[in-house]
Amino acid sequence: MRVACCQLSPSVERPERNAALARDAIAQAVADGAQIVVLPELVNSGYVFESLEEVRAAAVPATGELLQGWAQEAARGDALVVGGFCELAPDGRLFNSSALVDGGGVLAVYRKLHLWDQEQSWFAHGGEPAPVVQTKHGRIGLAVCYDLEFPELTRGLSLQGAELIAVPTNWPYDDPPPDGRPILHSLAAVTAYFNKVFVAVCDRCGTERQLRFEGGSVIAGPEGALRAGPIEDRGTRTILADCEIAEAVDKRTGARNDAFADRRPGHYASALRDG
Amino acid sequence: MRVACCQLSPSVERPERNAALARDAIAQAVADGAQIVVLPELVNSGYVFESLEEVRAAAVPATGELLQGWAQEAARGDALVVGGFCELAPDGRLFNSSALVDGGGVLAVYRKLHLWDQEQSWFAHGGEPAPVVQTKHGRIGLAVCYDLEFPELTRGLSLQGAELIAVPTNWPYDDPPPDGRPILHSLAAVTAYFNKVFVAVCDRCGTERQLRFEGGSVIAGPEGALRAGPIEDRGTRTILADCEIAEAVDKRTGARNDAFADRRPGHYASALRDG
Repeated sequence: MRVACCQLSPSVERPERNAALARDAIAQAVADGAQIVVLPELVNSGYVFESLEEVRAAAVPATGELLQGWAQEAARGDALVVGGFCELAPDGRLFNSSALVDGGGVLAVYRKLHLWDQEQSWFAHGGEPAPVVQTKHGRIGLAVCYDLEFPELTRGLSLQGAELIAVPTNWPYDDPPPDGRPILHSLAAVTAYFNKVFVAVCDRCGTERQLRFEGGSVIAGPEGALRAGPIEDRGTRTILADCEIAEAVDKRTGARNDAFADRRPGHYASALRDG
Repeated sequence: MRVACCQLSPSVERPERNAALARDAIAQAVADGAQIVVLPELVNSGYVFESLEEVRAAAVPATGELLQGWAQEAARGDALVVGGFCELAPDGRLFNSSALVDGGGVLAVYRKLHLWDQEQSWFAHGGEPAPVVQTKHGRIGLAVCYDLEFPELTRGLSLQGAELIAVPTNWPYDDPPPDGRPILHSLAAVTAYFNKVFVAVCDRCGTERQLRFEGGSVIAGPEGALRAGPIEDRGTRTILADCEIAEAVDKRTGARNDAFADRRPGHYASALRDG
């Protein structure tokens, strides 16, 4: 399974251009043999909104042209696309969502459960658990950006059988810790390691209304290593990794150990489930 | 709060020497101003056993001289000691345990919940959740080595109020991933970052009966950076970090975000709680 993360730099001031950018990136990744193409968070709208009107103007329904376009590109290579988009729900609410589509159309829409900072001014919180979807290219779990800071969510996806967690992301730039790699890369690597899954973080790049983004797309493997990325100049580029799905099915970690079978669910803090 | 991790190289063939090594290391760390001194896993016994008889010969009760000695050293500096030891339980069972002691004696004993590889031949699995203990130097959560691979356990400790998670460790050497730092260091850093706590991993070093150890002690802060370690030559040495406990009490991560308050416990997979 070839996984692509298309690191892009959308602009909150040019939503039509954003849609074209994303579509072109999918087309190129599919041409390069990708079976799973991951796009950044809010790829159609940009991120640094100034008003609710601006969000609403950029928002599109899950049934609209945006995702149909992704499906058309996916169909050219029997591929899947996972991307973040600014969603206008049928009831008029706005969500920071991620869609999974194949050549036939939309397979799942996930509405981000954990909203970062100003997102809380623009979007409603998702009200459904993050899904795992059985596809022709494996079981895909959906999460968005800040969700990655909640190990409950990614552990939950993995326990439900996700083999790849696809994470559209718009990560504001962090000064790297003095001792090493950006925290986003450690989060991807350790989430993959904990759960013996692949984690594909597709980040955006560039600067929007004074907010600089990380440009930190990476694809991590079940062993906790980065299989692709980071992109050295943090710019617009697609990273590719060939991921053997079987590696994420087998949870054994040694002759007598297994990352899932070794769990002791009766012995974890009740606070974990009760909130 | 000054935290010390005393990286040592016990020998499975010399249990008396191991006890002296540990006691000397505590004394030195306390003299250096440490309020919390962390020792490796199974510091009294060594690790690579050849028979159950060998384990049994090295095992000591929690009420015995070993932990009394730690308490005596702790008393000299109003300090705490957390260390792994080979425990002989009153009912004759053997456990891979961690003890927390202060100058007055033993405050808590935790019996490792997740046993790695051959440990399953020698030790019974712990049957009680990992504890968080209120001490004069903050709330300390206990975990041992492989436990660190279970985010449920460390998240649970943190939700119960742990400010520092002390992790006696005997990590078999891993070839570092091609892209960067040893997974043990990423686990410490990301566990600290997820939970906005301090994580003190005190690893052992050296080689025992052909098994080489990582020598990977580190102390990570709530921001996900390594505050102390790694030890460059992976040898016997004590690392120290001054940790401001208040940093681990405040879970805010931005003007409108909080690592714990932002959790959505009703929306995580039921598999997480049901096993």
